[in-house]
Amino acid sequence: MGEFSFIQWIRKRQRRRKGTLLGIGDDCAVIDVSPDKLCLITTDMLVDGTHFDLKKCAMRDVGRKAIACSISDVAAMGCQATVAVVSICFPDHTTEKFARELYEGMWSLTDKYNIEIIGGDTISGRGPLCINVTMLGNDGGLKPIRRSGAKAGDVILVTGEFGGSILGKHLCFEPRQQEGVVLNKNFTIHAMIDISDGLTADLNHILKESRTGAILHECQIPISQAAVELSRKTGYTPLHHALSDGEDYELLLTVSKGQAKSVLASGLIEGIRRIGEIVDGQGLRMKYADGKIRRIRPRGYEHLTS
Amino acid sequence: MGEFSFIQWIRKRQRRRKGTLLGIGDDCAVIDVSPDKLCLITTDMLVDGTHFDLKKCAMRDVGRKAIACSISDVAAMGCQATVAVVSICFPDHTTEKFARELYEGMWSLTDKYNIEIIGGDTISGRGPLCINVTMLGNDGGLKPIRRSGAKAGDVILVTGEFGGSILGKHLCFEPRQQEGVVLNKNFTIHAMIDISDGLTADLNHILKESRTGAILHECQIPISQAAVELSRKTGYTPLHHALSDGEDYELLLTVSKGQAKSVLASGLIEGIRRIGEIVDGQGLRMKYADGKIRRIRPRGYEHLTS
Repeated sequence: MGEFSFIQWIRKRQRRRKGTLLGIGDDCAVIDVSPDKLCLITTDMLVDGTHFDLKKCAMRDVGRKAIACSISDVAAMGCQATVAVVSICFPDHTTEKFARELYEGMWSLTDKYNIEIIGGDTISGRGPLCINVTMLGNDGGLKPIRRSGAKAGDVILVTGEFGGSILGKHLCFEPRQQEGVVLNKNFTIHAMIDISDGLTADLNHILKESRTGAILHECQIPISQAAVELSRKTGYTPLHHALSDGEDYELLLTVSKGQAKSVLASGLIEGIRRIGEIVDGQGLRMKYADGKIRRIRPRGYEHLTS
Repeated sequence: MGEFSFIQWIRKRQRRRKGTLLGIGDDCAVIDVSPDKLCLITTDMLVDGTHFDLKKCAMRDVGRKAIACSISDVAAMGCQATVAVVSICFPDHTTEKFARELYEGMWSLTDKYNIEIIGGDTISGRGPLCINVTMLGNDGGLKPIRRSGAKAGDVILVTGEFGGSILGKHLCFEPRQQEGVVLNKNFTIHAMIDISDGLTADLNHILKESRTGAILHECQIPISQAAVELSRKTGYTPLHHALSDGEDYELLLTVSKGQAKSVLASGLIEGIRRIGEIVDGQGLRMKYADGKIRRIRPRGYEHLTS
């Protein structure tokens, strides 16, 4: 089965409730908790063997990553993560020492970002370690930034560098919590998403939701050192890794040309840069270094395959 | 490791945040979302082989149970479940048809109780089916009922009958959503909990949090037909099953003597009855049919064992 077709089926069938401003299909859902307050909510499940490998990493890293992924979703709406509930299914016979390390990893980030773990569920089972974090966020008087607001003529900006996160970044990335809020507070952001599935795959989510197309510029794509390293092993180009690999957890946003200038000139967001523009029509194209523009296929990680 | 000792360790270490009215340790956490609105949150993880057995039940049943457990937690605070986010880890190679059945089961309850599934995460992994539901609730202007409010002299009331839920009720129970809200709206409830770990084990949670003791009356414990049936196979008495088996998902509450009379006379809650009283001191005792009072050990399901 495909993750996206399954989610589309759910979205169509799900009955809507008064008070839900934004349901399935964005980085967070948004509910209306009082006339002037919104509550954001996002949930992420990680399982050993798919999202991390306990043979190669520590329990601390897993706990940290679980929290970081959820913070990243709230940041991608330009809002602030506040409280979390955490469910963990430990493999049978897990020791308490091992279990505590998972929490130490979570607290390393929750303490930093003033997030409280306010509840949870701890079970054991015959499967691999599985951890689920549900994170709430608040709007702080700002408007949550959706995926659906991109407009033709917008400039596409990204934080950080891309590709090869499997070599380490997927475990130790810093969620762009501060950047997300600073962007929302100081500029008019049309659309924003965090890069979990892959640069082109997540850009494509924005394009679909906004009913627009985009042109990326080959020479502007920030390629990480890890993408270069990985390309030596895989035979793919570093650019391929930058465009397709998942779990960079950087922000991708679209803003008007004028706002793009302000963002870049402000110096508020370190390492932010332009990589292309939103255009009329649909689909994703690349302007290559030789000047030619060709259609490219969004590629990335789909969480379910049949 | 023991579930309760691990949770105690987490509770002690967790830094508190302004705006959290109730953190780890009750049926739901409660946060203060605006000056006059509270938001309740609870999370429950179920895994194949521990909480259900896909060899013996349908995907529909699993979906229904996952939602029902979370509604039950909100009901146990006397509040109304509103929206949920759902994470599912499907075993590799799950078909979409099978996956949809899980959702059909969830919707059978969410539609009934006007709950919207507003988001989620769908992954696949090498383990057994694992599902996590995070449910939000609202206070509807009422005070959430905690575990810690029981007072010496209170009467202990329960809905329904107990024991043997493994024979079927654990999959098809009706969460006491309406009963929880009706009780909170019409009466002064000192403490309330839903019976997931077992009658004595969950009563013990109230006793610990309220720093009180209790006496149960043997002749007043409502024993289910399933407990009688199960006792024929296990050799334990039906009373033992009623006191120790988990997953009845009935409500247990404590109220003053006067309020108990009003609750019982009101006819608002079908099948509600008294089973004992809260007393000074600590620990749990049973008044047997022969008139003797003896200390009993709270027994029930602890979700983790070393």
